[in-house]
Amino acid sequence: MEMQTVNSMNYEHFLDVFGNVVEKCPLVAAAVWAGRPFSSVSALEKNIGDFIDSLPRSGKEGILRCHPDLAGRELLRGTLTPESQRELSQAGLTSLTAGQRFQPSELNASYKSRFNFPFVICVRMSDKETIIQQLGSRIRNSPEQELQTGIQEVKKICHLRLLDISGQVAQATKL
Amino acid sequence: MEMQTVNSMNYEHFLDVFGNVVEKCPLVAAAVWAGRPFSSVSALEKNIGDFIDSLPRSGKEGILRCHPDLAGRELLRGTLTPESQRELSQAGLTSLTAGQRFQPSELNASYKSRFNFPFVICVRMSDKETIIQQLGSRIRNSPEQELQTGIQEVKKICHLRLLDISGQVAQATKL
Repeated sequence: MEMQTVNSMNYEHFLDVFGNVVEKCPLVAAAVWAGRPFSSVSALEKNIGDFIDSLPRSGKEGILRCHPDLAGRELLRGTLTPESQRELSQAGLTSLTAGQRFQPSELNASYKSRFNFPFVICVRMSDKETIIQQLGSRIRNSPEQELQTGIQEVKKICHLRLLDISGQVAQATKL
Repeated sequence: MEMQTVNSMNYEHFLDVFGNVVEKCPLVAAAVWAGRPFSSVSALEKNIGDFIDSLPRSGKEGILRCHPDLAGRELLRGTLTPESQRELSQAGLTSLTAGQRFQPSELNASYKSRFNFPFVICVRMSDKETIIQQLGSRIRNSPEQELQTGIQEVKKICHLRLLDISGQVAQATKL
């Protein structure tokens, strides 16, 4: 990605492009925009990570609560963001037939009940089996550990979304 | 509003209902949910205000940048939230004919260029003439003053949206 292109964006354009690198939290991209010029995509990513880390615990929990439920609530309601729709689809988690749909429902419900936020995992770095295994394993974490783990997954998702956008911006710049 | 109804909501339901009391920042409602039970709507509102105040300066600026441009960018693109659409419409700011549309374009552009965030004002507590007068006046503020003023307006908008929801929830509880 040509960082010059990114660094020349006004905040409205920047939000159009980067507004959902953290799911349903355009506030994050809107906050870090002021930190430009960014020397690289990694520098932008570091700004995002630092901003997330600067939030109080309630804010970090809030970020997790803005993520979709893997058991398909948002999928069924048609309220997935395009990014989540694509990522869950690539991971084979959006099949709509009841028999095939990813439904770790009891464990998933227990997870939400225990931690008061949804199970967040970077599905593009995983597969159905691993996700179920991770859910079963992470539910035994302490709330503090699990908050940290969830936020690390948010950062992985953000990393891949930034790479996607880098490719698109690079392509658009060439055209 | 029956606070018992609000306090019994899981975070998903709470986000469905309160997710946009701060424009395009569901993160805020998602963060304060953990502070329940709330003794009153005012207590919920105080939690929201305290969370906003706890954000670093970049986060407060980020909240302002998530607000629509009064000059109509989001209106023209059809990307206004239902709440903003209703509020701007009530203030007579959504007329789509070019001649009638609210276009303080030069002053508005100067404002954005000076502060790097949009001019945010609680339009339901104002009218076209006052908005234009306020824009002309507030543009002379220092960036620090104007950040504070913008955030105060965000809180006024939130206050009225909470009152709207209170009425709706009270109505739904009676039915």
